[in-house]
Amino acid sequence: MIIVLRPEVEMQQAEIILKKIEDKGLKPLCMPGIERIVLGAIGDERILQSLNLEADPAVEELRPILSKYKLVSKEFHSHEKIVKIGSTKFGGGHLGIIAGPCGIETLVQALDSAEYINETGVTCFRAGIFKPRTSPYSFQGLGLEGLSILNEIKKQYNMSIVSEVIETKDIELIYEHVDAYQIGARNMQNYRLLEAMGKTNKPVVLKRGMSATVEEFLLAAEYIYNAGNDQIILCERGIRTFETTTRNTLDLNSVAYIKEKSQLPIIVDPSHGTGVRNLVNPLTKAAIAVGADGIIVETHPNPEVALSDGKQSLYPQQFKQLIREISQISTIFGKTL
Amino acid sequence: MIIVLRPEVEMQQAEIILKKIEDKGLKPLCMPGIERIVLGAIGDERILQSLNLEADPAVEELRPILSKYKLVSKEFHSHEKIVKIGSTKFGGGHLGIIAGPCGIETLVQALDSAEYINETGVTCFRAGIFKPRTSPYSFQGLGLEGLSILNEIKKQYNMSIVSEVIETKDIELIYEHVDAYQIGARNMQNYRLLEAMGKTNKPVVLKRGMSATVEEFLLAAEYIYNAGNDQIILCERGIRTFETTTRNTLDLNSVAYIKEKSQLPIIVDPSHGTGVRNLVNPLTKAAIAVGADGIIVETHPNPEVALSDGKQSLYPQQFKQLIREISQISTIFGKTL
Amino acid sequence: MIIVLRPEVEMQQAEIILKKIEDKGLKPLCMPGIERIVLGAIGDERILQSLNLEADPAVEELRPILSKYKLVSKEFHSHEKIVKIGSTKFGGGHLGIIAGPCGIETLVQALDSAEYINETGVTCFRAGIFKPRTSPYSFQGLGLEGLSILNEIKKQYNMSIVSEVIETKDIELIYEHVDAYQIGARNMQNYRLLEAMGKTNKPVVLKRGMSATVEEFLLAAEYIYNAGNDQIILCERGIRTFETTTRNTLDLNSVAYIKEKSQLPIIVDPSHGTGVRNLVNPLTKAAIAVGADGIIVETHPNPEVALSDGKQSLYPQQFKQLIREISQISTIFGKTL
Amino acid sequence: MIIVLRPEVEMQQAEIILKKIEDKGLKPLCMPGIERIVLGAIGDERILQSLNLEADPAVEELRPILSKYKLVSKEFHSHEKIVKIGSTKFGGGHLGIIAGPCGIETLVQALDSAEYINETGVTCFRAGIFKPRTSPYSFQGLGLEGLSILNEIKKQYNMSIVSEVIETKDIELIYEHVDAYQIGARNMQNYRLLEAMGKTNKPVVLKRGMSATVEEFLLAAEYIYNAGNDQIILCERGIRTFETTTRNTLDLNSVAYIKEKSQLPIIVDPSHGTGVRNLVNPLTKAAIAVGADGIIVETHPNPEVALSDGKQSLYPQQFKQLIREISQISTIFGKTL
Repeated sequence: MIIVLRPEVEMQQAEIILKKIEDKGLKPLCMPGIERIVLGAIGDERILQSLNLEADPAVEELRPILSKYKLVSKEFHSHEKIVKIGSTKFGGGHLGIIAGPCGIETLVQALDSAEYINETGVTCFRAGIFKPRTSPYSFQGLGLEGLSILNEIKKQYNMSIVSEVIETKDIELIYEHVDAYQIGARNMQNYRLLEAMGKTNKPVVLKRGMSATVEEFLLAAEYIYNAGNDQIILCERGIRTFETTTRNTLDLNSVAYIKEKSQLPIIVDPSHGTGVRNLVNPLTKAAIAVGADGIIVETHPNPEVALSDGKQSLYPQQFKQLIREISQISTIFGKTL
Repeated sequence: MIIVLRPEVEMQQAEIILKKIEDKGLKPLCMPGIERIVLGAIGDERILQSLNLEADPAVEELRPILSKYKLVSKEFHSHEKIVKIGSTKFGGGHLGIIAGPCGIETLVQALDSAEYINETGVTCFRAGIFKPRTSPYSFQGLGLEGLSILNEIKKQYNMSIVSEVIETKDIELIYEHVDAYQIGARNMQNYRLLEAMGKTNKPVVLKRGMSATVEEFLLAAEYIYNAGNDQIILCERGIRTFETTTRNTLDLNSVAYIKEKSQLPIIVDPSHGTGVRNLVNPLTKAAIAVGADGIIVETHPNPEVALSDGKQSLYPQQFKQLIREISQISTIFGKTL
Repeated sequence: MIIVLRPEVEMQQAEIILKKIEDKGLKPLCMPGIERIVLGAIGDERILQSLNLEADPAVEELRPILSKYKLVSKEFHSHEKIVKIGSTKFGGGHLGIIAGPCGIETLVQALDSAEYINETGVTCFRAGIFKPRTSPYSFQGLGLEGLSILNEIKKQYNMSIVSEVIETKDIELIYEHVDAYQIGARNMQNYRLLEAMGKTNKPVVLKRGMSATVEEFLLAAEYIYNAGNDQIILCERGIRTFETTTRNTLDLNSVAYIKEKSQLPIIVDPSHGTGVRNLVNPLTKAAIAVGADGIIVETHPNPEVALSDGKQSLYPQQFKQLIREISQISTIFGKTL
Repeated sequence: MIIVLRPEVEMQQAEIILKKIEDKGLKPLCMPGIERIVLGAIGDERILQSLNLEADPAVEELRPILSKYKLVSKEFHSHEKIVKIGSTKFGGGHLGIIAGPCGIETLVQALDSAEYINETGVTCFRAGIFKPRTSPYSFQGLGLEGLSILNEIKKQYNMSIVSEVIETKDIELIYEHVDAYQIGARNMQNYRLLEAMGKTNKPVVLKRGMSATVEEFLLAAEYIYNAGNDQIILCERGIRTFETTTRNTLDLNSVAYIKEKSQLPIIVDPSHGTGVRNLVNPLTKAAIAVGADGIIVETHPNPEVALSDGKQSLYPQQFKQLIREISQISTIFGKTL
């Protein structure tokens, strides 16, 4: 930890802070410069958080040296983790695909979707029954009525189900019906939900918040890991920027960066990442090329009547074409489908 | 609603959409242009949402004419609403102040805070017992153990308590102990929590999400209003931008804009809005000058030992000075303290 | 053009605007709604700009239907344009590569760079002699002294030179020494420079401004095209967002979007787009996968002594490896190197 | 300067860097930690720039301690500088006002504007003759034809003229006709223009770029100062964010922050900062309350026929009202009009 003091601060005040650092068992360091004094603290600086040095009026700025996350880093665990949802693997050279409509609307819509998705060999089905929506006047999902539909998909097609939870109490309600939980972008910093995820024994797909930095994203994963569950699949789904031609700005830099820093698999959501049906195919390929461990994509048997996100949902033919193209390019990027 | 069709779409397809609009009871309108056909729908366009026209492959873009929010707008209710927390009024020419530490830490810290805040005449006390924190290794609030401290503040100083809820189940747990609920920035789009707020009979301070547009902010308030509670105080607390010298970018444009569009009172949080103690005073004055209906500000008896947000907390002397300055300038901006 | 009037505006005022539209030769359209009146104008709405309707106090908002750019769009010219720099082709299925150090520093550095770049078969050399730098205390480029070095590269290796111009007067100064001009991100809205580019007969590599929308980017190209030069290569180089782990956020959505909307080739700069050497390789592959028509990449014989941007410059071995990988994957994405 | 090495780097490599620091005359410092080695360099770290340490593969990150700007800081010159345009003072407790239309259109428009502006006591007239516009099809300013109009304003009303320059060659062309130069937001990083400003003997109004950080903004001023001209007035005019209800997001945090860090006066442009006529008045007041040293505001005798920016231009009556309100509130904020 580097502690930059304010220009007017004198050595006497600096020594008080040095003493505090020493008392915590870290090695203190004093660097008096021409314009101000700078201090250092060598050792596990996470211990220093409890000192709240940033609030000290003598301190202008704290510059941590270590990343704030630990368990999810490669330094903690150097091998790429492989996370499984049913028989689908993510990470460690495996490319996993999750597909389905944005939300479950009717039994017919769900089974129709499962039918053509299953035909392509994809076995993870995304099936939201709780839909957080910006407007109170929009379709909010079927709720618990949708559970029997999920069961039917599992029964008829033997697919694995990924479904979003919004509150801690949802976790148990859908436990028997799903193979993995999804945490949506709006809930990435719902820490109570993250901690509850840490107590489950099912894998979690954690979506990046639309204005979350990569560090905050990894810290959200750290919450889950720290609470006991290391079966985490990160998901880049685009961030909010000034650009409005696309719904979000898909940040593929983050995927390459996270592959360097973290042991966890990371997948990409090109549907939310663009918000435009025609851009899903090229951005999926870009995601695979950049090193993503998988894709989560929206497709609907009849997008123009979809109750949510129809604009970004692939038609069945487009979806089948996408899967064909993925299988053509995955090998060249060192991935097994 | 304006419906811009894709360039290649022909009149025959346009007519199918016109028919759908008519079937919903709206007046359809056809504008064939030189490069493409544009359609219109006159009437309450919120009805059109269920058509999901944006997902239609013939449609390039939907341009709604009406705002998506309704109940919170001035068009629905033209007078400024006055919301009361205890005896403090917000809106309609009244300037309300809420003050206190970021989080309740100990009984002594809480009572010390209440003591000097109360002396200034401020009677609304912000007192968080649940603290959502970016890192799992940071102080997370006292939880329910803090409730007895809240009671003590009410008993000794007769102050009104504003406290944050994080999940729907918190609402009932703290109901007897608080005078108003706060929804934090990270929960602005926690729709289940918003709906539950709509069922309470206490006022709600709703903070703007750090990457929420003004429209999304008002739609979040619409959720609460629509579910039955119109005692809503909006709170601008800064948005996330590329600028990093301050923690957030306080968006005072939004305050002036919302005063024009909405009946609801809006207050400003200069503590989170800047993240820097020395900037709280000037930005508070700016907030009052721009027309805000109040301020929520962090102060701590001893910021350098605060367990959270000490860097942005005012020292007691700074806080007293701020209140003096507010009372000097409020009249000139047409507000009653 | 759709013209949304303010709620309080009455029919009488609306008719004045309708008359103005008619006088310009467009077909006016009146849509009286429940909450406000909405007007339309059918025809070439670019004519309406001179009416400045947005400034009319009766008008709340203008919603143009047509894009503001015209010449650079696919609607104007439906075939992908192929732009050549020397013998290297960009667009129409051709993948072009431009490589070199950020700036020309010495004859030795330049020739060393040219040597190993040329060996890979790449024939376009990026060679900046004017370097716009954020700090006045940083290296600002060799200036005109660098010209003899450019000549030497051409002579010894027969490579084509791409070099940045900063002011209109630079254009003539370096005319004899370069094969293509580059407009840097900071100058994307330097309209005088854009117009002067329109008068040259050499191709122009136009970089996207760091906070320019895609529409503004295409309008900048429109300036050049409109002034007489259609040999334009667009270059996505990352935008400024809240994310700070990478220097910029490379926006590959924009590449896919522009390939749909514009006839012009678009290349990607993964060096500035990430700012981190190790991320250049994966993001280059992503760029090719998403459909980019080429790459402009920084490499230096000895990055740790580079006078600018060394952090993002590839070592010679990394560069050679990148070119090998590009040639392996280009065919599968339908491109000829 | 703090130099964070990559985790795998060993002491031997660290020593090479320490030697380089010592050779530059700075005091090197070694901090071997548990996860990596961290180095320090004590002394004038601006000297280290030439080492380009950030490009060294052993280095993960550089953390400068000193700000990159120097001349414009309060540490260099602790008193607030007062800059004069004609008889109007900015800074040191003086509040200066610059007003006028966005662009000069005709002699009549210009004189009409000067007439009512002058009546309010404002003596600085903003009068652009070169207008950088996003679209090539928009009005681009009168150019040199406008000069005789500027002369007429000076002659008839004895006002001081502030006018924008776009290229270095403009400086001399308008020298005799203006009292201060303006550098527009799009040119804030046009370093050649900034250096040329440093050679003039007239004051410069420097607008913040729409995506410039505060540090970049101050570094742009540093270019001018370093080249010889310290008569600089900074101007906050809003930044680009995700929010679209207003044209830009006016960043008043930056004003308070710059007042703390820099000796230079800073004014606010509420016209571009909001883009909406009705928001200009409240944001002007907020700017004064936060401590700005002045205002630059757009007003037009007839905004609905303005050739540019009419939407944000005040009507004459609104402008007069604004000046009345400014004079009522300036004293309470410690400013002399």
